Amino acid sequence: MDSAEEMSFTKRLEQAWESSGSLVCVGLDPFVERFPEHLSSEEEPVFVFNREIIDATADLVCAYKPQIAHYSALGAEEQLEKTIAHIKRSFPGIPVILDAKRGDIGSTAEMYAREAFERYGADAVTVNPYLGGDAIEPFLRRADKGAVILCKTSNPGGKDLQDLRVGKKALYQIVAEKAVTEWNENQNVLLVVGATYPRELGEVRSIVGEMPLLVPGIGAQSGDVGSAVVNGKNAQGTGVVINSSRGILYAGQGRDFAQAAREAALKLRDQINSFR
Amino acid sequence: MDSAEEMSFTKRLEQAWESSGSLVCVGLDPFVERFPEHLSSEEEPVFVFNREIIDATADLVCAYKPQIAHYSALGAEEQLEKTIAHIKRSFPGIPVILDAKRGDIGSTAEMYAREAFERYGADAVTVNPYLGGDAIEPFLRRADKGAVILCKTSNPGGKDLQDLRVGKKALYQIVAEKAVTEWNENQNVLLVVGATYPRELGEVRSIVGEMPLLVPGIGAQSGDVGSAVVNGKNAQGTGVVINSSRGILYAGQGRDFAQAAREAALKLRDQINSFR
Repeated sequence: MDSAEEMSFTKRLEQAWESSGSLVCVGLDPFVERFPEHLSSEEEPVFVFNREIIDATADLVCAYKPQIAHYSALGAEEQLEKTIAHIKRSFPGIPVILDAKRGDIGSTAEMYAREAFERYGADAVTVNPYLGGDAIEPFLRRADKGAVILCKTSNPGGKDLQDLRVGKKALYQIVAEKAVTEWNENQNVLLVVGATYPRELGEVRSIVGEMPLLVPGIGAQSGDVGSAVVNGKNAQGTGVVINSSRGILYAGQGRDFAQAAREAALKLRDQINSFR
Repeated sequence: MDSAEEMSFTKRLEQAWESSGSLVCVGLDPFVERFPEHLSSEEEPVFVFNREIIDATADLVCAYKPQIAHYSALGAEEQLEKTIAHIKRSFPGIPVILDAKRGDIGSTAEMYAREAFERYGADAVTVNPYLGGDAIEPFLRRADKGAVILCKTSNPGGKDLQDLRVGKKALYQIVAEKAVTEWNENQNVLLVVGATYPRELGEVRSIVGEMPLLVPGIGAQSGDVGSAVVNGKNAQGTGVVINSSRGILYAGQGRDFAQAAREAALKLRDQINSFR
């Protein structure tokens, strides 16, 4: 159980929190329209952009989270493969969460797991619980890989289903309970709870014990960093992976964009740590 | 409003039901391991397999439904593009439903819509309602494109969330209600209801009026064709798109696999029509 390959996903995440001293996750969501102009002559602008961002921020983060639609809309699957391979090669201690919000039945779910873990080499993948336990089972089965289940998402429309009352509980609370009691046999489940809902974040923390939470929604979506950390952290002062995408990626628009991204990541790391 | 491009998705589907006299949808879910041996020397076996199946069944179906994980697990995005382009070129009247079960927040949902409709040129895409209305809005917005929302899925685990009681209703019934009352302004919404749950299929039909339903789960998943048609059809004797994947694709294993697929599709079409 010494090598990174054999270690459980949660263990690897704990090591990444420990060694980086950071709860920051950088979301690798490339918008080519917002890239610095000098990258427009590159043959693989998405990969070059990501590589620069990664090299400038790797000592400040506990994870990277590429969002797959930003690649598949462009037909840039190869650049996503290269991005993840670069992280694995240069910074093998940093887990990669593929944000793909997958979920399908039986043999198809197995195909999605193959895509995330074998083709792309991701360490974890976000999954959607609407299809139930058997649809996420191919993700849960691999203890060395994380299944990051949507619980209470950061968007306003999340309430449409997630806040519906099932008896005395909201649907997202039921998802949190199932995550702990039914789906976490391999200790590799995480939940997504948006920073835009700090009260709900605290409720989920009280349901799930020490389970790690992926927290999007700060920055462009206006979630508050302080209340996300205070309500989301576990007893060790860790337990949260706080994602920032645009606030870091597009902090600068010039040739020094990677340095600007580093400064934004550093500032966020320190701001988060002041609440731990 | 004469050209296929300007017509609403529902209208196009109605025309496809009418002109084919069929409610059959062939699910294009390639398992390379199950391909006839003589295709193993092909450079693009997935595309060749699909093309043969399509050419042999096009007069017997109202839609094709490629499941994207079967392509992305293999890195075969180009073969998916070619498959859809082949349908558009050779059989422009047949709608293509990209089965991708997408759903994400704001700008990311827009990227997924771009992937489905612009990159792949699909006519409709399956989407997951767990993130709520704003997450599917980029799909709902385009009247000429269909949004096929998961409601009551065919797998046993579907019950984990979908059958939870919200007041006096099941969650899947709430989804059906929202689909009719909130999400269908552009008359381009369909719902997924598994043939494995015929009673629930009838309930959803009674909630949604004439809205088309995509019905997977016959064949390998043992849903009954007769009760699917009887419970799912609308007042016109249409309203359902009944999907079969493995039962048609792998009806034969030899050089005559496409002919065997045709026979299986013909048999299914006639079986369905006997219950209309």
